[in-house]
Amino acid sequence: MDLDVTAPTRSAASAAADLVRLLPGRFLDPVLAAMVLTATPGGLELAGTDRERGIRLSRPARTHAEGRVLVPAKPLAETLRNLDADEVRLVVEGSKLALRTPNARFALPLLDADAHPGVREAPPRVGALDAALLPRAAVVASATSRDDALPVFTGVHVRQREDRLVLVGTDRFRMAVASLPWRAEVADLDVLVPASILAEVSRQASGDEVVLHADADRVGVSWPGAEVSTTLLDAPFPDESRHLLPDADCAVEVDADALAGAVRRVSPYAGAHGSVLLDVDDSEVRVRAADSRFGDAQESVKATVRGDRFGPAYQPRYLADALAAFAGRTVRLDLRAGQRRSSVISEVEPGPAELRYVLMPKRG
Amino acid sequence: MDLDVTAPTRSAASAAADLVRLLPGRFLDPVLAAMVLTATPGGLELAGTDRERGIRLSRPARTHAEGRVLVPAKPLAETLRNLDADEVRLVVEGSKLALRTPNARFALPLLDADAHPGVREAPPRVGALDAALLPRAAVVASATSRDDALPVFTGVHVRQREDRLVLVGTDRFRMAVASLPWRAEVADLDVLVPASILAEVSRQASGDEVVLHADADRVGVSWPGAEVSTTLLDAPFPDESRHLLPDADCAVEVDADALAGAVRRVSPYAGAHGSVLLDVDDSEVRVRAADSRFGDAQESVKATVRGDRFGPAYQPRYLADALAAFAGRTVRLDLRAGQRRSSVISEVEPGPAELRYVLMPKRG
Repeated sequence: MDLDVTAPTRSAASAAADLVRLLPGRFLDPVLAAMVLTATPGGLELAGTDRERGIRLSRPARTHAEGRVLVPAKPLAETLRNLDADEVRLVVEGSKLALRTPNARFALPLLDADAHPGVREAPPRVGALDAALLPRAAVVASATSRDDALPVFTGVHVRQREDRLVLVGTDRFRMAVASLPWRAEVADLDVLVPASILAEVSRQASGDEVVLHADADRVGVSWPGAEVSTTLLDAPFPDESRHLLPDADCAVEVDADALAGAVRRVSPYAGAHGSVLLDVDDSEVRVRAADSRFGDAQESVKATVRGDRFGPAYQPRYLADALAAFAGRTVRLDLRAGQRRSSVISEVEPGPAELRYVLMPKRG
Repeated sequence: MDLDVTAPTRSAASAAADLVRLLPGRFLDPVLAAMVLTATPGGLELAGTDRERGIRLSRPARTHAEGRVLVPAKPLAETLRNLDADEVRLVVEGSKLALRTPNARFALPLLDADAHPGVREAPPRVGALDAALLPRAAVVASATSRDDALPVFTGVHVRQREDRLVLVGTDRFRMAVASLPWRAEVADLDVLVPASILAEVSRQASGDEVVLHADADRVGVSWPGAEVSTTLLDAPFPDESRHLLPDADCAVEVDADALAGAVRRVSPYAGAHGSVLLDVDDSEVRVRAADSRFGDAQESVKATVRGDRFGPAYQPRYLADALAAFAGRTVRLDLRAGQRRSSVISEVEPGPAELRYVLMPKRG
């Protein structure tokens, strides 16, 4: 039972930091604020749970003695992060886990491992996708709400549609829809995944491929050396299709970065609760804002325009977030007026991973 | 009166940002939250005041029409910072100051320049020092308190001592003393300078030399294109000499960065209000901390030790701040016990700019 391993410091430190970021906030129960370290002949496993999420990260290590211990997660992560030695030995000494380098010793209290509820395994595999597509999933996650009072808007709706995986996230004021190529291993998939874990997983995943796992209650993502799962959200998700109809009153093609730069410069003139206007003209979009105290601003951006002329108004941050998702690309804005008013941003030349971003213009 | 200038964007933006950083916090009076722009044949001057401080920054510009206007300082600085054009034209248009680039216009409201109290000029010159010595002045400023309730501890005591300028700052728990080579232009100088402006000036000053200005009421610093002055603090400053006596019970020579690294790694184990101990032994210092919940830690750092053995304890942040002031150098710790307990950190091989840092060890 007396765990004793030597591990490369940097890889152990990054795993501990990843685990801490995947475990939500502050726990009253010290057992849940702790991580389970398991030394096996294959290396070191770091695991944690908040009773909903289950996280298991494996890292290479030379195991001198197998064992399993429970230690406070954040102190362990902070100590590993600060170390300057290339390797660190983790060894149980009495009631402590010692972290030893040639000239230093750091000792953390051991907690009662038997009090830990255990870390659930991920449900069965349902398919796989290229890890390079995860930034698109992160964009969809970032379009959701952080307000737990309406759980459906904190989730990403993940569905299989033929050979594509369609991800939809919305906070009611904006919506992002990604359609990604996907190697399905089941006939059907329709789940509501907490957006926060999807965003964090998109940042952490490494390697070429990530595997999706799901059953009726849980969903998981795995990649080499890591497995993360959590309870599904259970709520009816709104249908996005009416916002994605092909017709539009006006279509504008514009460089996303040029428009984003103008929005960034003009937005301070919108005041605290103001709007940024896009004035669509023959061959340009004028980005405008005015506030009685701050002054007024406008900047012109070259554009190709078809259809009616009009000038939708947006909350500056939402417009900036949407354009940031298309950095480096030329986008098309499909603008609709009246009862069906909405603005859909998409790529002019979409790659295999399609992304559409729907904004609700302010009522004029 | 209708100011009209074309200025290089980056230099105007950095001047506006510097001026905003030199003006304290939030103003209820919009006139004080504004800056005075003056266009002369020589260029553009940006000036501001909070009634105590006076700031004048000059930048090159092509003046099309001379003039003087008052505009909100932060909005102007933010607009200039965001611009991506190489040059910007600042021109009065009606009741607004317009900032124009080839494809954009930003307009800020003009305020009533006559309502502005004016920006005071700096008092007469008293001497000059090499700008390269300013980081030492910044260290002294950072040893002071931010608590306005005790004004003396928010100031840096600046005195002329023969051909040296001696700067002392303390918050009662620590004290930094710098002795800098100085080209005096008066016989005597003894002033208490607000530390916050000295710290900011140390960051901003450019060029080879900075000039000090002072009279009975005010103190100022100037360098090419900039002049900053403020009201002196008026309070009796404690005498530092008793903390700097040459005798010590123990002298430790150690690499400042190695000791700082150990302090950084061990400090988390000191808990929220705990101490870091330096255990002085024959040829090493053991940095130690222990907290009942977090665990315990120790790291050894090679050192040369003369005199008695003992183990002073410090507040971790104070020890870390002090060592950071000596980055890249070998330092000597002169440790005293008993009634005269104090620890003085200095360079083993001091350059022309001497720095001594006094820490009060915790009562054992």
